[in-house]
Amino acid sequence: MKDTVFKGIIAYPITPFDKEEKVDIVLFKKLVERLVAAGSHAIAPLGSTGVLPYLSDEEKEAVTEATIDQVSGRVPTLVGVSNLTTEKTIYHARFAERAGAAAVMIIPMSYWKLSDDEIFRHYDAVASKISIPIMAYNNPATSGVDMSTGLLKRLLEIPNVTMIKESTGDIQRMHTLKKELGEEVAFYNGSNPLALAAFAAGADGWCTAATNLIPELNIMLYDAVQANDWEKARQLFYKQLDVLKFIVAKGLPRAVKAGLHLLDQDAGYLRSPLQPLEEKEVVHLKQILNDVTQM
Amino acid sequence: MKDTVFKGIIAYPITPFDKEEKVDIVLFKKLVERLVAAGSHAIAPLGSTGVLPYLSDEEKEAVTEATIDQVSGRVPTLVGVSNLTTEKTIYHARFAERAGAAAVMIIPMSYWKLSDDEIFRHYDAVASKISIPIMAYNNPATSGVDMSTGLLKRLLEIPNVTMIKESTGDIQRMHTLKKELGEEVAFYNGSNPLALAAFAAGADGWCTAATNLIPELNIMLYDAVQANDWEKARQLFYKQLDVLKFIVAKGLPRAVKAGLHLLDQDAGYLRSPLQPLEEKEVVHLKQILNDVTQM
Amino acid sequence: MKDTVFKGIIAYPITPFDKEEKVDIVLFKKLVERLVAAGSHAIAPLGSTGVLPYLSDEEKEAVTEATIDQVSGRVPTLVGVSNLTTEKTIYHARFAERAGAAAVMIIPMSYWKLSDDEIFRHYDAVASKISIPIMAYNNPATSGVDMSTGLLKRLLEIPNVTMIKESTGDIQRMHTLKKELGEEVAFYNGSNPLALAAFAAGADGWCTAATNLIPELNIMLYDAVQANDWEKARQLFYKQLDVLKFIVAKGLPRAVKAGLHLLDQDAGYLRSPLQPLEEKEVVHLKQILNDVTQM
Amino acid sequence: MKDTVFKGIIAYPITPFDKEEKVDIVLFKKLVERLVAAGSHAIAPLGSTGVLPYLSDEEKEAVTEATIDQVSGRVPTLVGVSNLTTEKTIYHARFAERAGAAAVMIIPMSYWKLSDDEIFRHYDAVASKISIPIMAYNNPATSGVDMSTGLLKRLLEIPNVTMIKESTGDIQRMHTLKKELGEEVAFYNGSNPLALAAFAAGADGWCTAATNLIPELNIMLYDAVQANDWEKARQLFYKQLDVLKFIVAKGLPRAVKAGLHLLDQDAGYLRSPLQPLEEKEVVHLKQILNDVTQM
Repeated sequence: MKDTVFKGIIAYPITPFDKEEKVDIVLFKKLVERLVAAGSHAIAPLGSTGVLPYLSDEEKEAVTEATIDQVSGRVPTLVGVSNLTTEKTIYHARFAERAGAAAVMIIPMSYWKLSDDEIFRHYDAVASKISIPIMAYNNPATSGVDMSTGLLKRLLEIPNVTMIKESTGDIQRMHTLKKELGEEVAFYNGSNPLALAAFAAGADGWCTAATNLIPELNIMLYDAVQANDWEKARQLFYKQLDVLKFIVAKGLPRAVKAGLHLLDQDAGYLRSPLQPLEEKEVVHLKQILNDVTQM
Repeated sequence: MKDTVFKGIIAYPITPFDKEEKVDIVLFKKLVERLVAAGSHAIAPLGSTGVLPYLSDEEKEAVTEATIDQVSGRVPTLVGVSNLTTEKTIYHARFAERAGAAAVMIIPMSYWKLSDDEIFRHYDAVASKISIPIMAYNNPATSGVDMSTGLLKRLLEIPNVTMIKESTGDIQRMHTLKKELGEEVAFYNGSNPLALAAFAAGADGWCTAATNLIPELNIMLYDAVQANDWEKARQLFYKQLDVLKFIVAKGLPRAVKAGLHLLDQDAGYLRSPLQPLEEKEVVHLKQILNDVTQM
Repeated sequence: MKDTVFKGIIAYPITPFDKEEKVDIVLFKKLVERLVAAGSHAIAPLGSTGVLPYLSDEEKEAVTEATIDQVSGRVPTLVGVSNLTTEKTIYHARFAERAGAAAVMIIPMSYWKLSDDEIFRHYDAVASKISIPIMAYNNPATSGVDMSTGLLKRLLEIPNVTMIKESTGDIQRMHTLKKELGEEVAFYNGSNPLALAAFAAGADGWCTAATNLIPELNIMLYDAVQANDWEKARQLFYKQLDVLKFIVAKGLPRAVKAGLHLLDQDAGYLRSPLQPLEEKEVVHLKQILNDVTQM
Repeated sequence: MKDTVFKGIIAYPITPFDKEEKVDIVLFKKLVERLVAAGSHAIAPLGSTGVLPYLSDEEKEAVTEATIDQVSGRVPTLVGVSNLTTEKTIYHARFAERAGAAAVMIIPMSYWKLSDDEIFRHYDAVASKISIPIMAYNNPATSGVDMSTGLLKRLLEIPNVTMIKESTGDIQRMHTLKKELGEEVAFYNGSNPLALAAFAAGADGWCTAATNLIPELNIMLYDAVQANDWEKARQLFYKQLDVLKFIVAKGLPRAVKAGLHLLDQDAGYLRSPLQPLEEKEVVHLKQILNDVTQM
């Protein structure tokens, strides 16, 4: 298999803000520490959960450095560096490499829908400027473009594009990728409610923000998969399914922040226009988290 | 669990026609015999595969009787009796029960999109006229209506609605049903490319026309699932995936007929407007079937 | 222009049933008479409004004969003869021609999604058996297949396919058809809420069930279009828009029946599983009809 | 009617780049001059056409100032100030006001899908910081969120939200807005292929990048509408329809740049990842532009 550095549970921290909506780096480091301490197999700052697109260049750099400093080599770090322009994507990818990231994650953000050639050139331009591996991320719901199996095949010809994260929410896509791209590539599932089906399909890891709230259940599910104990995997999946569906439905940054607070962990503020969940939504989440704990 | 009579591989025969496009009952019985002999756990005539909506009342009755006669109690029989009008659905459901069907399958066909109340009344009216169990079938692609989890919950209050067949093609739906409707209900997967994911999610059976072409692979997959050997299940699934995707993409009656011919089994003619696959499609299917056999 | 026989408001009667859900031909003829008397430019029985797919062969024949008898040549008659099988479509098309229909309307009904070749063969087979013109009808929401501009172009090569009815609900489709198929073909709009936009795009007629309830407004709109008085056309369109949206949202047979009753016109019963509108829906329709009348 | 400052053809300039992909302000001013000279009724920089999201804060400010300087009060200016965060949106809206913009256009950009309350707060926060009118822009394809009629009604309660631009591409939406929001609000169509249907529905203006290529046809269409000469309006619409469809299909910045070059007007470079149209696409555009000129 090509050079892959991740397996298991890849945990996505939120980016907390202070009351004035400035990034709170001290609190961020505490939230990263929780994820590492809970047994996460990797840490992935500056994803959708980390509200990457809402941050300035300087804020992205501070978050990158804070993550690598806090994780301190205990597990590998996957840094999100996606940007609308190629120039800025290169800029952040190089920064992440210099800062010590194990790999970078890149989604082809597109205000104007990009052609296959434009996407290929974009990845190729970035890849040629760094030495660490790239995880190509497909999520049409946020990027506005759905990368075909054929395009992903092309991207994998770029030497340091070695991993694929699939978040269309359609398990049939994962099957097709696995079947057509072969065993040489590492696949990561980015759709929380597909966790079980993706592992059944052969995914190497699960990219998730749920680890902020239910790390044991996430990791036990992966352990059951590794042990080929599918009856247990299924039980663990259904046990956590309501949490997975809730955080996806409400938006990961909002839902994780609310959940952390319910778990007595300060999670700071959101940046406008994002607002906290409504009270009734928080009550619903509390009920769900209680059910999970009691089961 | 409520009264359920099926598990494992529920095989759907095609309805073959002669050169004048009349139903060929003699050939149909041969095709049913192949399915039983191959180890299918149940036989389901008059499904989409059996081109139910293209048949006259008399033809449906002849196919029902021929199935039950040929199967002769070796495995249970699930007869499709769906119809646009409630009156005709009752008529065919009663016929199937008298003929000896173990259960009937009903999809809420709808030229005019039906309300939840209309669908409930439809099932309730039919259920009150028969004693055998009903499998409620959700497939918005063919019925034009997508039954919500809430509606399915209502349908399950009708005593002899005991089973649900799910064919939206979205594994998340199966998870939701399983989670919300509970362990009391039997679930069957009707989406071929979701066979692995549905078993992972806890499906009790797989409704499929693929058994006409690759019965061993279908049954071995189910056996691996039963043995909790998921590594093997995954390998078997990927081995047959191209066949599953091909028959779905090309239309089950056309694809099964072409496949049977490639396997040296006469499958008769189609009824117009349905036409045989084009030559290049047949060549493609031949390649896929060869690959499956060699692996 | 090819042989076209319709223009203006093509009115679709419902098919009323008696208490035992048998077709009520006497009442049907009264409803047809209302449409003719109101000034409709053509009468189209056995459309979706007339619940064609819910009727037996004998019932379709009775409705066809009753229409032609009642209209008695005052305006042309367009009879729906669509059927899942080619054989039955030919059967009903020939019946309509013998009975005296001016033309037949055919939608490519498809339980199994038909290929372009299958659709072409279907139309060609029917067309070769009759001498009267055919209106090809595109409505993917009910037929399950969306005929491309290229396919419609092929269909128009068949001599007696001379008219196109477009009901995708997307005005851009009408623009494309008009632009690519040219001035030689007659186009009819089958999407009620697009009435104004379709006339702006150059449609020759409007196929509608609204004429059962608001014939004056339908006809006045067409008259304003003919007079190139677009300010008036727009006012008339907005005046009737709520009625158009209501009957589409609730299902034409249910909504027209309820509306006729509000107008003190008996409209009989529906055939199960179709049920009458709920009381609150009827109240809403009453309000809408009152508003239209007062304006 | 509330305070509205635009009518007719609102022209969107592209933002040209030099070879190093830096904004070319000198060339930008020439392109703005062309639009004013051609008779555009307003100029709208920093829209999707102007690749707003690909620009830095400083670049946006330079483009804003250059527009207002060049237009020099001959027609009103509508400046795009949308941003993912509320803080940045306020920042750019205030800048535009100080620079002399007649109004600002704001689309609720959303990486994380925003709730109605979040969108309302966003507009309200911006509106409270400026005195000039705001055009609320609905385009789910680029913003990721589809503002309902009910939400737009709420937004119109904010005193300086006075105009709505609708770009869903569904003419039925325009009808509903017009019907439910009333005559007090100004509506602008942002979907090029709906130009005719939107004017038929009562739109006050047409926001378009086509004016960079075919200003006469755009303006003649509006003039015909104003003169209530719909036969002419229809002819003019069909004459330019292929251009409208081409520029939408290929992406406005790419297509306008290619078209300007075909018209012997330098349009600079694009910013990566956006790349020029392929040669065969340029040939196709040349053919379309030739056809339009000859007709």
